Amino acid sequence: MSRDLTVSIDAMGGDAGPGIVVTALARSIIRHPAVKFLVHGDEAVLKPLFDKRPKLLPRIEIRHSAERVRMEEKPSQALRRGRNTSMWRAIESVAKKEAEVAISAGNTGALMAMSMYQLGLIDGLDRPAIAALWPTKRGQSVVLDVGANIQCDAQQLVDFAVMGEAFARSILGLERPTVGLLNVGSEDQKGGEEVRAAAHILRGAKLPMEYAGFVEGDDIAEGTVDVIVTDGFTGNIALKTAEGTAKVLVYFLRTALRRSLLGQIGGFIAAGALGTLRRKLDPRASNGGIFLGLNAVVVKSHGGTDAMGFASALDMAIDMARADVIPKIAADRAILAASNAGAAAQ
Amino acid sequence: MSRDLTVSIDAMGGDAGPGIVVTALARSIIRHPAVKFLVHGDEAVLKPLFDKRPKLLPRIEIRHSAERVRMEEKPSQALRRGRNTSMWRAIESVAKKEAEVAISAGNTGALMAMSMYQLGLIDGLDRPAIAALWPTKRGQSVVLDVGANIQCDAQQLVDFAVMGEAFARSILGLERPTVGLLNVGSEDQKGGEEVRAAAHILRGAKLPMEYAGFVEGDDIAEGTVDVIVTDGFTGNIALKTAEGTAKVLVYFLRTALRRSLLGQIGGFIAAGALGTLRRKLDPRASNGGIFLGLNAVVVKSHGGTDAMGFASALDMAIDMARADVIPKIAADRAILAASNAGAAAQ
Repeated sequence: MSRDLTVSIDAMGGDAGPGIVVTALARSIIRHPAVKFLVHGDEAVLKPLFDKRPKLLPRIEIRHSAERVRMEEKPSQALRRGRNTSMWRAIESVAKKEAEVAISAGNTGALMAMSMYQLGLIDGLDRPAIAALWPTKRGQSVVLDVGANIQCDAQQLVDFAVMGEAFARSILGLERPTVGLLNVGSEDQKGGEEVRAAAHILRGAKLPMEYAGFVEGDDIAEGTVDVIVTDGFTGNIALKTAEGTAKVLVYFLRTALRRSLLGQIGGFIAAGALGTLRRKLDPRASNGGIFLGLNAVVVKSHGGTDAMGFASALDMAIDMARADVIPKIAADRAILAASNAGAAAQ
Repeated sequence: MSRDLTVSIDAMGGDAGPGIVVTALARSIIRHPAVKFLVHGDEAVLKPLFDKRPKLLPRIEIRHSAERVRMEEKPSQALRRGRNTSMWRAIESVAKKEAEVAISAGNTGALMAMSMYQLGLIDGLDRPAIAALWPTKRGQSVVLDVGANIQCDAQQLVDFAVMGEAFARSILGLERPTVGLLNVGSEDQKGGEEVRAAAHILRGAKLPMEYAGFVEGDDIAEGTVDVIVTDGFTGNIALKTAEGTAKVLVYFLRTALRRSLLGQIGGFIAAGALGTLRRKLDPRASNGGIFLGLNAVVVKSHGGTDAMGFASALDMAIDMARADVIPKIAADRAILAASNAGAAAQ
């Protein structure tokens, strides 16, 4: 079998167990004919699942691991006791260069801690970030950090901007993405010290991006900029607030349509259009947070995802592995460091 | 004329000028037969507008002020030079007990600064907050702070919880509202120091509310709790992110419906149901932030609002003035102070 890249999967991570991973793989092997998959987990559970799908067997390799990381486990605890878990081993395959990218639907904090420990950070970076692709009026934007870092200083926000533009250049195919800092107003004096200091650095930075200034919460869905930079606390709450709003809106719409006979008929006829909308907004279609800043890419699928969602996260992992985003981040981080050194020398 | 309360209006504050205020008043005088309105602004502009609506004249009093606060003005600057502005005078009428509540569609920062200066804070409070009524699956929840305070310590978050529950008891008619702290997860160890320390205080506080622990972004629209407490940076971004998401969702829906003939027909028939949805989500129907923590209530209407939106904000101002929320906040703040003193004495 020709192999252009290998994906390392923690098959025991998600709430739904390894069944959805196997179903997702059945789809992925067709879509990605030259990709190989290392599947980490309990062989006694995995083998019978794969035996039912013989077409998968030439494309996968089961790697037995006896344990798994639990969802409620603290990252520090998982890191201490977790060397025999499917999550640790999935990352280890990337650290040992047996695979280019790792993916898990498990405990986010544990996955981040184990990834940092085994893969290390790109030179000059302080912290990794979790990036999300956000559906917008214009297409998709990248939002980061959506949960790795509760508090961030100015330099970290600048680093997130670098990771975000490298990601947008790699995955969205943009030559010079526009980058905005999330804030409570667009005027220069708005927001806390960190975000204002980050704005000052970005305004002067010679990076392959257009710094577009401060953006507000409603600019995310509008698609005002390609990359939205914020701390992990705000980003996580913005992401979940948007998800909740979309969910309740669709619920309201269904209720409103059901209320009248005319609405029911209209709703029936409009079902096709609603289907288009649902596909556009389906969280499974852009499932997963991407860990950026490490020396390899790790993709986190939602813990509660189904097979379709895990297949989308696999698509994302494969796109990321092919896009060479790490050298782009490293190169831009070096540009920043050089201009900092230049500024310090003056 | 019998008078049960008086509303003091900054008629020059909004982007659209005083025309929308006058139109909104035409609606308000019918809905609130015993309310009087002090209208602050440029008499030369206001008088011709009111002359065209003679029914308004017995219910309003024009108070001339030559100047106005500009939207882009810094709060500190407005405070220094603004004594002759319609905004300052509108608040002054409340400070002088000529009116019970003030309302403006002008510069939020200037309105907050002038309100703090002239009205003062309720005893024991450190900072005011801006509260918003948020449409949820279950009805409405109170979210605060949505923009007054960029960074908040634990005691401020606790004070916001007190303001929020007093507001929910007054306006939503709840005896013991449920209160949640906005965070990035529901586990005890999640989030920054401030939010965890606030949780510790609220867990032990003897207040007329149920402390429900940490809630996440998607809990807001779900209506999981009646009151959501957060810092002004996160709250503002969550509010605007939700507004943007709702707006883009409705745009997607319209586009999807227009795409097919069947969708067009379905959309036409479903128009009644969509109308119900639009009314439910119309930002004009819950227009305005409520300044809490001051010795009187001040309502901020959106700067870009229309007459219908300003009329809704007037409804809110009148409800607030009648609800006696200030004594409730003061009483609960005293309970907290007593239990702090008790804890310190032990």
